[in-house]
Amino acid sequence: MNIGIVGLGLIGGSIGLRLQALKHNVFGIVNNESNQKQAIERKLATHVTQDLNVLKKCSLIFLALPIRDLIKPNKELIETIPEDSIITDVASIKDPIIKTWENLHPLFIGSHPMAGNEHKGVNAGTVDLLENAKWVITTTPKTDMDSVKILSNLIKSMKCEVIFANPSIHDKATSLISHLPIFLASSLIHTAHSKEDQVLTNLALKIASSGFADTSRVGGGNSDLGRDLAEFNQKNILNGIKKLKANLEEFEEIIEENNLLRLFDKLEKAKDLRSKFLN
Amino acid sequence: MNIGIVGLGLIGGSIGLRLQALKHNVFGIVNNESNQKQAIERKLATHVTQDLNVLKKCSLIFLALPIRDLIKPNKELIETIPEDSIITDVASIKDPIIKTWENLHPLFIGSHPMAGNEHKGVNAGTVDLLENAKWVITTTPKTDMDSVKILSNLIKSMKCEVIFANPSIHDKATSLISHLPIFLASSLIHTAHSKEDQVLTNLALKIASSGFADTSRVGGGNSDLGRDLAEFNQKNILNGIKKLKANLEEFEEIIEENNLLRLFDKLEKAKDLRSKFLN
Repeated sequence: MNIGIVGLGLIGGSIGLRLQALKHNVFGIVNNESNQKQAIERKLATHVTQDLNVLKKCSLIFLALPIRDLIKPNKELIETIPEDSIITDVASIKDPIIKTWENLHPLFIGSHPMAGNEHKGVNAGTVDLLENAKWVITTTPKTDMDSVKILSNLIKSMKCEVIFANPSIHDKATSLISHLPIFLASSLIHTAHSKEDQVLTNLALKIASSGFADTSRVGGGNSDLGRDLAEFNQKNILNGIKKLKANLEEFEEIIEENNLLRLFDKLEKAKDLRSKFLN
Repeated sequence: MNIGIVGLGLIGGSIGLRLQALKHNVFGIVNNESNQKQAIERKLATHVTQDLNVLKKCSLIFLALPIRDLIKPNKELIETIPEDSIITDVASIKDPIIKTWENLHPLFIGSHPMAGNEHKGVNAGTVDLLENAKWVITTTPKTDMDSVKILSNLIKSMKCEVIFANPSIHDKATSLISHLPIFLASSLIHTAHSKEDQVLTNLALKIASSGFADTSRVGGGNSDLGRDLAEFNQKNILNGIKKLKANLEEFEEIIEENNLLRLFDKLEKAKDLRSKFLN
């Protein structure tokens, strides 16, 4: 299959590596010479180019672009994509992207692989990032179901699990499990770094270990992404922050009262729930 | 060296495995038969017993007990420990433990290895948990510095880095980098599990991936520990929650205003700070 990937960053590059391992002919588009050179060195696609015209040969195209470039896509991209190619994106917000692209292309399908780490750019993709990942496909009444079948089979061949969802519910769910953690982790880092007490901060900096590393990990990621999420999934994220604050306030109250039974229960409940999330 | 370890849970068991690899003669104390059987099977100490009297042979003793058992130690333990043995603990709170033990034993030194995971009990310890860990030794005017030298050399021989700190500053620092993350992670789990919207919760449960797993990890740990921390490091943890809420409220305000420049700056600042914490 001739497959196009527009953007060879963390997700685009990982898809490129995985599809080549499955013997597909992959056309990867980058936006400048330096990225082109590195993407070629890292073999992120069979052909790496800055020329959008190669997309005319592709029957399926992944738009692995930043959210803001998906919501305001450039004209040349829209004009070059063939009408009969299947198009999907990989962004962690679906509703506003689908609203844009369903009006631009008859075979657009919103999708979202649930994988990531704190790296970005053409040096970030790896062949195993997507292994065993869950990959959400969001359908609407306008979605072409024959195209969904083809995309879904391709995703499964990449050893990912396909999950179907409604776009708005997807955006609410990702706001809780994926976007909120970014602002929470970032808040934790700011909290742990006290400006007023340098002695305390010096010790905290020295002894922070695996617990802090894990809890703060997604606060060390791509700030452009965090900003785009806040702009385009604003309402859901604000709801998430409100709920999180309410839970923190409940802990605050319980700890203040020294209500050790209730505290133990709330901790134990979270522990049980966590195992449901990660089964 | 004859070394005693009272309690062969996650930390005690890991110390036991590590000290045996260094050819020390390790006496491990457990509190019941079933733990004794498993600890023997897992070879957590050279000798595993329920009999505190073996401590009389030990020149150095690790009290790897739950915080509440250190703050209210049982009489038999106090009476059995020899006056001329060096005693240390491994708990992540120092001030109240030191206040108790400095009055009970002339050679007590508060210490705290910065390592852990979500497991507990005699099945949890591993030989590599403490590898390259930072290990805080807290001294006070009463601390015997010859004993500190011996303990510190032993810790270094276990491939850990010794860091000296004042007990109260230690307790403030761990409240931020280690205790606060527990209540934060627990709050995130409760937030992501909406009771009102089952469809949303079902999707969130299905698609939660590595970001959620990492951010919530310490919320899946030992609830007894979380409760003890909240009881015995109450003031510092409450301060941490207050600061954290203020940071979340700043994000809330910035996102509400759609102030994308300020948002990017706050995310970028956290990212830079994080790399300082983990260097």
